[in-house]
Amino acid sequence: MYYLGVDLGGTTIKVGLVDENYHILHSISGPTGRERSAEEVLKDMAMLCLEVLKRQGITEKDIHSIGIGSPGIASPEEGVILSSSNLNFNHVDVRKEIQKYIQTDVYVENDANAAALGEVICGAAQGEDNVVVVTLGTGVGGGLVSEGKINRGSFFGAGEIGHQVIRFGDGEPCGCGRKGCFEQYASATALIRQAKAAAHLYPDSKLISLAKEGLIENINAKVVFDAAQAGDETAERVLETYFKYIACGITNIINVLEPSMIVLGGGMSAQKEYLTNPVTKYVQEEMYGGLSLKTKITAATLGNDAGIIGAAFLGTTLK
Amino acid sequence: MYYLGVDLGGTTIKVGLVDENYHILHSISGPTGRERSAEEVLKDMAMLCLEVLKRQGITEKDIHSIGIGSPGIASPEEGVILSSSNLNFNHVDVRKEIQKYIQTDVYVENDANAAALGEVICGAAQGEDNVVVVTLGTGVGGGLVSEGKINRGSFFGAGEIGHQVIRFGDGEPCGCGRKGCFEQYASATALIRQAKAAAHLYPDSKLISLAKEGLIENINAKVVFDAAQAGDETAERVLETYFKYIACGITNIINVLEPSMIVLGGGMSAQKEYLTNPVTKYVQEEMYGGLSLKTKITAATLGNDAGIIGAAFLGTTLK
Repeated sequence: MYYLGVDLGGTTIKVGLVDENYHILHSISGPTGRERSAEEVLKDMAMLCLEVLKRQGITEKDIHSIGIGSPGIASPEEGVILSSSNLNFNHVDVRKEIQKYIQTDVYVENDANAAALGEVICGAAQGEDNVVVVTLGTGVGGGLVSEGKINRGSFFGAGEIGHQVIRFGDGEPCGCGRKGCFEQYASATALIRQAKAAAHLYPDSKLISLAKEGLIENINAKVVFDAAQAGDETAERVLETYFKYIACGITNIINVLEPSMIVLGGGMSAQKEYLTNPVTKYVQEEMYGGLSLKTKITAATLGNDAGIIGAAFLGTTLK
Repeated sequence: MYYLGVDLGGTTIKVGLVDENYHILHSISGPTGRERSAEEVLKDMAMLCLEVLKRQGITEKDIHSIGIGSPGIASPEEGVILSSSNLNFNHVDVRKEIQKYIQTDVYVENDANAAALGEVICGAAQGEDNVVVVTLGTGVGGGLVSEGKINRGSFFGAGEIGHQVIRFGDGEPCGCGRKGCFEQYASATALIRQAKAAAHLYPDSKLISLAKEGLIENINAKVVFDAAQAGDETAERVLETYFKYIACGITNIINVLEPSMIVLGGGMSAQKEYLTNPVTKYVQEEMYGGLSLKTKITAATLGNDAGIIGAAFLGTTLK
């Protein structure tokens, strides 16, 4: 049996055929063209799915289902995307549209939730029963997976880890409308902002010399880690503060939900133990009354494949 | 069938006999004497249980089980209190001790969790499937109840709503070791501290004239609400800020967990709509992208009985 997983992004539609051992056998992608109608976008998606099947020499009868991870809020069992500001999708019956072209079961899910499920099924959190995946990228997203099932909350909107305020009053304004959200301190975007501010103050820092063309505006997350690993004190201080921000939001989640594992995903997860070791240290310092930290903190292992793999197996977790 | 519920506090042990309709038929209490050994405290508890049965003319054969809500961390199915700083209980096999005197099933649970369960079974959250109870009292506690079951997290410690940091960096120090915890801004203790500070700045405020003997040190939570309702501007400003603090922590919880209902419990719940209306207004203002608030916010209705009733029915939710 095979499983089709779709990672529907604002820019690209990625489709992958996954086998029972969670391996992506073949994947292709195409432009989303998000200015178009939902019907047109979903027709392209169906064509990509059919193309993958054709290339692998199989038919719709050989697949269990199609699972789709999408930005926004989705009702997985109905196969409907309720809203998605990235795509201008509003109450779109994805299942009905896809089934115009392919006769198989179709499920949809929020993309962060799908990626979290992927990490639980066959990534960093395999075998863990109570997992929070925190995605540190352009923004900060999240997914809650408990006993193999995604916890969507009561209205399909749970897991917005990035939109907990950690700085009441005078915090950084956030796109969600609040001030002081975790996302404004713990995202890759935030790290870059913090590093650029430090580079302006310390122009001799390797933060600048390691950036492309030696320009402050070219500082990215990797430059900050590289500069710190090269012993640059400014970069070290920037990262220390950044890790403390991450630890603050992670400790909040542990105190409320106490998962068995927290997986740090998104672009930042490429730093692996350079990220998880200091974050774990600071979280331990924040534990209630100095008790020892029981929740494991680890980096995601599936990278960009998490979305496709998690989506592919949506149908098996819903039934 | 009857159910015995015990609310084990640092000062008092309260025991109630509850019927199938969730009515407390009879209750008695005795001093905890927490400086004593666990064996002695639990023997007294068993005697109180037997006394309630005797007074109601029934025996241990007429009860389903005994449920005990206790401060600290408990393993409900084993009937063991793992730790409780309030009681100096450390890995105490409560079930075994109680069964020396009464032959029935015995369950233990964290007291905030037991009270949350009570509100779900027959209080403010009856019929709701996904509930967070936030206790605003001396501290800020919490309990998560999903589909009628308490969510304890992976190590029996979930629900510490009060220990999410909402003010990173320069926040108020908290007893848990962190700085800027929600508890330090949203508890009754915090409200009183905020009101006393305001009263020092505005000595003509009704905050002082309504306090016992007209003394700042006698300002309590009720005085703040009474002064605001009497039109005192200083009290109104204090409450406005206090409600915004509460709304901050509540919105964080909604963004992460998205429960169908949040119940505000603890001593502050006596203010009912004077608490829930402004908090709901400020939470609505914090909703993601201005979307409408779907989670209901309401005041607890069982008061101090929630702990006994929730404890009494522990055995029915575990089996």
